[in-house]
Amino acid sequence: MLKKIVHIGVAVRDLEASVRLFTDLYQRGPVHREEVRDQKVLTAMFSSDGPSLELLQATDHESPIARFIEKWGEGIHHVSFEVDDIETELQRLSSLGFVLIDKHPRPGAGGYLVAFLHPRSTNGVLIEIGQRMASGYGE
Amino acid sequence: MLKKIVHIGVAVRDLEASVRLFTDLYQRGPVHREEVRDQKVLTAMFSSDGPSLELLQATDHESPIARFIEKWGEGIHHVSFEVDDIETELQRLSSLGFVLIDKHPRPGAGGYLVAFLHPRSTNGVLIEIGQRMASGYGE
Repeated sequence: MLKKIVHIGVAVRDLEASVRLFTDLYQRGPVHREEVRDQKVLTAMFSSDGPSLELLQATDHESPIARFIEKWGEGIHHVSFEVDDIETELQRLSSLGFVLIDKHPRPGAGGYLVAFLHPRSTNGVLIEIGQRMASGYGE
Repeated sequence: MLKKIVHIGVAVRDLEASVRLFTDLYQRGPVHREEVRDQKVLTAMFSSDGPSLELLQATDHESPIARFIEKWGEGIHHVSFEVDDIETELQRLSSLGFVLIDKHPRPGAGGYLVAFLHPRSTNGVLIEIGQRMASGYGE
């Protein structure tokens, strides 16, 4: 079951320039920074009273973020939902016909195990589901 | 000040087909439906414990959603932040150099007054800000 939207991922070319821009928008700096080696990204999280906004800069031209920017330019990349049991949820979604990018969860930012659904089965929306394995940022 | 992300807008071609798809994802139907004549859209809102997901189907080929789908296909269209005072926030953002699509607020869904910032000044992210003027859906 999709419990709630926990963050929105935004693909950016230059993380530091984007951190300055979103600091102006939020009137405060990022609450968390992290490199996610598995996804080949540097991240900076902005948070207010609700879900976070996660800036993502590729660390390698093979990163999914590099490929996304090449195709679409900078912008919203994915929306992430928290789930209680990611393996059960992947099975449920797969049995309903949703196309899984990740058949098994992978390490994500903020102490989550994550997996992506393919946007061709979700109206063009790249959906991440994540199960929290450790305390997150800002806690 | 951007208080929190209240919804994510998703551009869809066929609202009823997308409602079925997101009902499978959410394991429950939409909590609210509304036509927003000013934006020439039909909307259906899905909600869990957190921000909502707003499906948007154009009612006219001049709708911003029709133009978005023509250019980019279906997918995430915008992210919406709640603010306390939309006029003050528009002035603040404009003075910082953010480009406003709407210099003055317009009626949005769910009893909000809304305005959009141009994605060319926000890393390709179409940001809506909204001030709540009336009780929303599901309350």
